[in-house]
Amino acid sequence: MNVLILGGDGFCGWPTALHLSQAGHDVTIVDNLSRRFIDVELEVESLTPIRPIHERVAVWEEHTGKQIRFINLDLAHEYDRLVTLLVDDRPDAVVHFAEQRAAPYSMRSAATKRYTVDNNVSGTHNLLCAVVESGLDIAIVHLGTMGVYGYGWSGSAPIPEGYLTVNVPTPDGELEREILHPSNPGSVYHMTKTLDQLLFAFYAKNDGVRVTDLHQGIVWGTQTPETAIDERLINRFDYDGDYGTVLNRFIMQAAVGHPLTVHGTGGQTRAFIHIRDTVRCIEIALSNPPASGEQVSVFNQVTETYRVRDLAELISELTDTEIAYLPNPRKEAAENDLNVTRDRFLALGLRPTTLSEGLLEETHEIGAKYATRVDMSKIVAKTVWNAGMEVSPDLRR
Amino acid sequence: MNVLILGGDGFCGWPTALHLSQAGHDVTIVDNLSRRFIDVELEVESLTPIRPIHERVAVWEEHTGKQIRFINLDLAHEYDRLVTLLVDDRPDAVVHFAEQRAAPYSMRSAATKRYTVDNNVSGTHNLLCAVVESGLDIAIVHLGTMGVYGYGWSGSAPIPEGYLTVNVPTPDGELEREILHPSNPGSVYHMTKTLDQLLFAFYAKNDGVRVTDLHQGIVWGTQTPETAIDERLINRFDYDGDYGTVLNRFIMQAAVGHPLTVHGTGGQTRAFIHIRDTVRCIEIALSNPPASGEQVSVFNQVTETYRVRDLAELISELTDTEIAYLPNPRKEAAENDLNVTRDRFLALGLRPTTLSEGLLEETHEIGAKYATRVDMSKIVAKTVWNAGMEVSPDLRR
Repeated sequence: MNVLILGGDGFCGWPTALHLSQAGHDVTIVDNLSRRFIDVELEVESLTPIRPIHERVAVWEEHTGKQIRFINLDLAHEYDRLVTLLVDDRPDAVVHFAEQRAAPYSMRSAATKRYTVDNNVSGTHNLLCAVVESGLDIAIVHLGTMGVYGYGWSGSAPIPEGYLTVNVPTPDGELEREILHPSNPGSVYHMTKTLDQLLFAFYAKNDGVRVTDLHQGIVWGTQTPETAIDERLINRFDYDGDYGTVLNRFIMQAAVGHPLTVHGTGGQTRAFIHIRDTVRCIEIALSNPPASGEQVSVFNQVTETYRVRDLAELISELTDTEIAYLPNPRKEAAENDLNVTRDRFLALGLRPTTLSEGLLEETHEIGAKYATRVDMSKIVAKTVWNAGMEVSPDLRR
Repeated sequence: MNVLILGGDGFCGWPTALHLSQAGHDVTIVDNLSRRFIDVELEVESLTPIRPIHERVAVWEEHTGKQIRFINLDLAHEYDRLVTLLVDDRPDAVVHFAEQRAAPYSMRSAATKRYTVDNNVSGTHNLLCAVVESGLDIAIVHLGTMGVYGYGWSGSAPIPEGYLTVNVPTPDGELEREILHPSNPGSVYHMTKTLDQLLFAFYAKNDGVRVTDLHQGIVWGTQTPETAIDERLINRFDYDGDYGTVLNRFIMQAAVGHPLTVHGTGGQTRAFIHIRDTVRCIEIALSNPPASGEQVSVFNQVTETYRVRDLAELISELTDTEIAYLPNPRKEAAENDLNVTRDRFLALGLRPTTLSEGLLEETHEIGAKYATRVDMSKIVAKTVWNAGMEVSPDLRR
């Protein structure tokens, strides 16, 4: 299969590109290197050392003999080049990771709110327009987020995979209707993914574009079999308060002797997935696209759910690290349960990596090995959801 | 009240500006004159002669002694100037009409699809960001569309004003939930208004921004008492296949002896409102904003519903004009019923202008008077929803 990976230089995109290349697909990475520019802006770096993209693909070819092409293109602002690329390259599918993906970054300032909306909405809409304009039958696989659903909305009913059946009262009795699950995003970032959903629904209906939307949980872990082949292929590990995800942050904090930072009560229950399973899910989704004219195909891309404080306590016991309960800079429920339907990927053969399998490896191979690269001033989350909300000072110098 | 009218040079914005100025409010029009540029692009003009904006406001002052300020600003791309304007002007409210509003124009080409999404989403999001950044308690009144709901979704249940109560099946029995009515937009334009809804919901929740969203039907009529004071204050009357709305197009067609163009079976039922009622609704909405922290306040801004072919038959009989049934360039249901809840404005004192009151005035004062300005080559709708859909040739030279 000929596949374009939009955002293929990022945390999920890079290991996906390698995984699909290893599996024999013809892979082109399309990326404007925005994630590297944001590192510069935030004055932070991945815990793991990331090589330039041309070196990355050269090392991959050196080890495997497989070529991955790289095209520097800004999806949100270079529409005509995108159309030309589709028409010339005639991909079978496009995997769309090319969105600003950090909730805290999306709430930092008016500038980052506006950047996130502009980049994500324009990027997704440009892709849809370009696929229609190309006249080609290109399947789209998009990385969504569990955050589109919000938390705790449907009581004891598990969150379905995209679509919810409801009963609508009418003068002639109740009418059963399937609806896109009502959205309740918790940040500007999550909001953009709810906008994406409406873009996809319209283009699927009006133009028969084939779209798969993957509502992913919080990704943890770093390496896949392919990124582990050579240190120059290593994947990102973000630990800072904006881009770091909670479980990886705990692993890093334990490695450097920083208290585990729980914001709020830690009663938030979230869905998780290992990066190794992310890349497998993308491959499964590519192999199972909807037909033209069908509604958007939605998968919940999650494997386990945990309460944040339970995760903190687990890592704390394993590593003998204290826990610091800090003010919550986000506006969210202090405590929630989470019951997520995740049948579709399991039915298609996904064998999940569980926390018990992956955790020690992460702690030793990544946390301990790269601990000296940590900047202590970047650990405590400082981005607040409303002006004036309380933040913690740094806990270590 | 100090009010900014974004898009105050357009078909709804201009009469609203005059109406609010006449009512004693301090009015500033903010507009980038985009509607005039699109006339140039489409090589068409309003049936009524529209004067330059500075002449319009000068004539208004000449007649009434009231000043309306005009600021040329692109809401979607001049964010910093917008923030400065809010901070300097400290408006009590902003009325947001500044969106590309023609469904056919939004479907013409990749360029107009992208322009519509960029202009409408960036404009709305910039406004929300700027209100938050200003730190001021500015109420927003936004012009939405009935088209966010789609047609025929809820069987015999009337379309509610924004929010729908549904029953969600759970293992512990049904859970009653109020949700934003599921959206089913029929064009890229309508889709942008469904995106707007999600932007408003997030900023109302996260930042306590006070937003009223008005889901308006198809506007007909031209004049309000204020625009009728002097011909140089006259409102737009768009008759072309992209910007003309169905009832005004029938009136114009009858005036020039062109067959009344019904696309498809004419079985589409739509909601209507006279422009005189639009401006009153805006005034009512400004006087009844939600409190900070409340959900977005939604009104259905419609007064009557009609089936398109019934309207055509009515005008046909009144004016002895034939009806031409042409291919439908839109993707929509051939026939639908429409039952709309419209209690909120009535409860707040709106006294609707009915078709029977306004129709003869339009036919004589506008259709007949300006008939010589019609360009026959612009009448038949030519914009299609998918490449290759059938269109009718022009019916008159």
